[in-house]
Amino acid sequence: MNQITVTLQPVGRRIVIERGATLLEAAQRAGVEMVASCGGMGVCSTCKVRLIQGRVTPPVETELEELGEELIRAGYRLACQTEPLEDVRVEIPPESLVAGQSLQVEGREGRVNLDPPVVAIDLQLMPPSLDDLRSDLTRVNAVLQERGLGPLAAGPRLLGALSQQLRQENWQVRLAVRREGEASGLVSVLPRGARLVGLAMDLGSTKLALFLVDLESGALLAQTGVMNPQISFGEDVVSRIAYANRGEEQRKQLQTRLVEIINQTLTELCQREGLCADQIVDVVAVGNTAMHHLFAGLPVAPLGHAPYTPVVSEPMNFPAAEIGLQVAPGAQIYLPPNIAGYVGADHVAALIATRSYLAAGRTALLVDIGTNTEISLIHRGQIYACSCASGPAFEGAHIHDGMRAAPGAIERVHLAEGQVRVVTIGGQAPVGICGSGILNAVAELLDAGVIDARGVLRAAHSRVRPANGKAEFVLADTTETAHGREIVVTRKDVNEIQLAKGAIRAGLEILLKEAGIPAEQVEDFIVAGAFGTHLDLASALRVGMFPTLPLERFHQVGNAAGVGARQMLLSRGLRQEAAEVAREVTYIELTTRPDFTPTFVECMYFT
Amino acid sequence: MNQITVTLQPVGRRIVIERGATLLEAAQRAGVEMVASCGGMGVCSTCKVRLIQGRVTPPVETELEELGEELIRAGYRLACQTEPLEDVRVEIPPESLVAGQSLQVEGREGRVNLDPPVVAIDLQLMPPSLDDLRSDLTRVNAVLQERGLGPLAAGPRLLGALSQQLRQENWQVRLAVRREGEASGLVSVLPRGARLVGLAMDLGSTKLALFLVDLESGALLAQTGVMNPQISFGEDVVSRIAYANRGEEQRKQLQTRLVEIINQTLTELCQREGLCADQIVDVVAVGNTAMHHLFAGLPVAPLGHAPYTPVVSEPMNFPAAEIGLQVAPGAQIYLPPNIAGYVGADHVAALIATRSYLAAGRTALLVDIGTNTEISLIHRGQIYACSCASGPAFEGAHIHDGMRAAPGAIERVHLAEGQVRVVTIGGQAPVGICGSGILNAVAELLDAGVIDARGVLRAAHSRVRPANGKAEFVLADTTETAHGREIVVTRKDVNEIQLAKGAIRAGLEILLKEAGIPAEQVEDFIVAGAFGTHLDLASALRVGMFPTLPLERFHQVGNAAGVGARQMLLSRGLRQEAAEVAREVTYIELTTRPDFTPTFVECMYFT
Repeated sequence: MNQITVTLQPVGRRIVIERGATLLEAAQRAGVEMVASCGGMGVCSTCKVRLIQGRVTPPVETELEELGEELIRAGYRLACQTEPLEDVRVEIPPESLVAGQSLQVEGREGRVNLDPPVVAIDLQLMPPSLDDLRSDLTRVNAVLQERGLGPLAAGPRLLGALSQQLRQENWQVRLAVRREGEASGLVSVLPRGARLVGLAMDLGSTKLALFLVDLESGALLAQTGVMNPQISFGEDVVSRIAYANRGEEQRKQLQTRLVEIINQTLTELCQREGLCADQIVDVVAVGNTAMHHLFAGLPVAPLGHAPYTPVVSEPMNFPAAEIGLQVAPGAQIYLPPNIAGYVGADHVAALIATRSYLAAGRTALLVDIGTNTEISLIHRGQIYACSCASGPAFEGAHIHDGMRAAPGAIERVHLAEGQVRVVTIGGQAPVGICGSGILNAVAELLDAGVIDARGVLRAAHSRVRPANGKAEFVLADTTETAHGREIVVTRKDVNEIQLAKGAIRAGLEILLKEAGIPAEQVEDFIVAGAFGTHLDLASALRVGMFPTLPLERFHQVGNAAGVGARQMLLSRGLRQEAAEVAREVTYIELTTRPDFTPTFVECMYFT
Repeated sequence: MNQITVTLQPVGRRIVIERGATLLEAAQRAGVEMVASCGGMGVCSTCKVRLIQGRVTPPVETELEELGEELIRAGYRLACQTEPLEDVRVEIPPESLVAGQSLQVEGREGRVNLDPPVVAIDLQLMPPSLDDLRSDLTRVNAVLQERGLGPLAAGPRLLGALSQQLRQENWQVRLAVRREGEASGLVSVLPRGARLVGLAMDLGSTKLALFLVDLESGALLAQTGVMNPQISFGEDVVSRIAYANRGEEQRKQLQTRLVEIINQTLTELCQREGLCADQIVDVVAVGNTAMHHLFAGLPVAPLGHAPYTPVVSEPMNFPAAEIGLQVAPGAQIYLPPNIAGYVGADHVAALIATRSYLAAGRTALLVDIGTNTEISLIHRGQIYACSCASGPAFEGAHIHDGMRAAPGAIERVHLAEGQVRVVTIGGQAPVGICGSGILNAVAELLDAGVIDARGVLRAAHSRVRPANGKAEFVLADTTETAHGREIVVTRKDVNEIQLAKGAIRAGLEILLKEAGIPAEQVEDFIVAGAFGTHLDLASALRVGMFPTLPLERFHQVGNAAGVGARQMLLSRGLRQEAAEVAREVTYIELTTRPDFTPTFVECMYFT
């Protein structure tokens, strides 16, 4: 086995390397730029990584020196000194990623020119005297003007804090100011030298991802994920909209729960990183339109019934204090524009993160798979977008033994010569099957001829058995699973996958038709999102979810929405671009297309 | 008696007319423009006034018809049909003043071009459909653009309210929007046809004046005055600053009490006028620098010690919600700039109200007398300003029998042939003496030779008697007063007046010196403020408080700061002008002038 697969976490990228290559080389070839101050000589510890799974070469002396025994026992290694001996899974801690690297997806991604809306201004003022009677604010504005910035705009509370801190700190402070038109919005008054940090958030229906970014270097300082507490009010956005529409109080409750968990998670992140809330001076949040509205506190009633129009599609900027987010007193929350009721700011952020494909004038598809799958087709500078109701099957819901992608979930299935081999997340005994597992299973069952073009399970296989008048396939029997119950694939499971992949494929086909091009003309097929990044491409092609294109045209880019959100923390230009992108998109409402239903029905079949 | 004095309330203007003239003619000659739709024919009731004091001709038939018996019993008359038979005091209700009239002071005052920052936009939108999937905000912005306005800027709370009201009101609402740069700040979502109202406030150390102004017509809708509740924390601003500096809580307390009484008074005004808080869509507040800071919640510590610099001298705009003012949800408070620690936004507002004197290129003095007296000298397009510590004598404080200008206060004193005649406010038996009374008394005593150039009372007069080793003058004896105690003028009282008038005169002299002109060159001498409007000019000249100029050069203009505040509700241009005025003023800090003390000492003498 000379081909070794290296999986890099948390960026979620995989690369196949030859045996003998180091982890640093693997990361470099995967387009993940790691810090390696000494150029791979092993004399700095900047390329530190943590081994999660798989065997590698033993630590060399320089690693023992640089890292110490304790870190090595915890799995830490220098990427430049470590060669994998088999397929490995490796975690790259944020500090080992170069500034701005975090801002790149899959090599093609252009760098972000650091031009953040919020910047630091270090002040050192002369105190007032009888010869200089200028007010505190006049004094500060004079310095801002010298530095090419407009006069401070702030409410009295912040101006009062500024005045008091100037006097306490001997007239030396650091200001965080937001460059807005001709004014400088005062965000925070900090001690000299304090780091300015931005908070980017991807507010998924299921999971919230929080990122802290150094606004001066662009470096990703920390990131974390947490479950969306709104789940207890409804598994999907449709049921949460219904809950919110019961009354103001219920809608407010959904918002409050969300903001509370964010505040709590942010507090923990800040403590871990030695930051205070006053240093979180800018916020970008993305999410689907429903999450966007619920987070901001906008009514969601219009999203609950046709024609599903958003209350706000425009980019929003509002004080973080308005919704009780505990960040710097003058910080604003920026929400990128929504395209439609079911194509939200998260999709715009993904378009921003993958903008290099657009910029090159290429024909590209961007697909973010979820309960609703948003698709954009970029062709000749035009963007066509739609949303398909692909359902929650890929999140493990509505599947007989379905579960989220968590330890013990079957993520790969191999069928060979009547035998079934399953691979689980974490390598544990299986407890269920996640989205990529069920997709993989269906593809394997198709290949093995166990299911036919209509999705019917044939009784020919030894693992197929009848159940309630229908057939089901036993993936793992009672002796194999962790809980001693069987894990099966039912006819209904197969049908759920057919509905899901049919909806996605139909959306793709309608967009291609709208642009008037055949699928073969698509040069880049970008698969974004957690599921999209972990799915087995071959399986997706096998079941017909995606059109058959050469594998090298596919790019599994991970959480592009999160990357876009982080990039927009760092660039005023990208926020501008987001507004333009959203304005220029041609949105296709599938439900109004007479050709949608026949296309959808056709796409449900396997071929 | 063919000369009759007509006092017009609440504008506080007096005019002497010939017997036979109507009250409408009196008002017109006084420069108070009343509504008189029928041109004085007595066939409309638009020139309605209320008689407070004095005899007039009996009601004619047309008045009985137009007003009805009940109103006439309450003292109401038509100004065009009523001739005074003796000195009268008349109240002009706000509705009888023409739109914009309220915005004029003393005839010379230029009209305000109606160009308010906050304007009404009536919307009538097409609801969303499958053919028109635009978001609610996009729909609204399209209309704004058609009308030459920028896109709405608002937080989610207001945008949510907009969305909900659009749906409830069948897509017809009235918006109040603030024209700010390229955006339209959403202030309030109202039913179609709702009046847009602005709140102007003059926040005096002693009294708060509130004015409601129709932002579309410019008409003054209502006004009221209320005592400043901060008085219980300190009579003057110096003691309130000291109180505020005890801690954050104390400073907050001063602000809270102020905002509470304003909210309460505003609620009453609104109820009276049938308005709701959402209709109060703009706020202008003026006050001295300390009141400005305490109202906004800025620290006042720097105002408490040399060099007395303000925290903010720039114009301020901030959400009314930040300080808890109960007006429309998106309303902002505009505070005009401060010039210095003791020349505040109220003086800037007075300069705006009296700007026609500046505009004409004339040489003018603007004097606003209070505990601190602010003075501006306008000469050749330049403004020189200073503040003099004139003390509280003119407010009746530090005077033996001093009191505020309230019923029973002696406001005029006549000394003739050894007899003393006093006139009180309201004509009641005297209970004390107010600022204009003590000024008048000192002038009379000087004329009668009872006090000499140094302010010493001579025992030659029958009413002079010794008291604690010093002389005092009995103005009213035990039989004359309401409380059966004497009312006297003491040596110390005279001395207080010397200190006050000396400080004011010294300020005037220093400014004239700075501009390099003699007093005679002053073409307009504008006396603003409550005391300035009621003082007896001849007395002020007699005691040497003002330089001797022909009486017609003096203009007692009333609450110019309040007028300026109201005008700034109606004009973006005037707010711009306020910023320019404040920037261009040459502020003279009297305490740093070596010539101040000798000038002050010299000015304390009577001549």
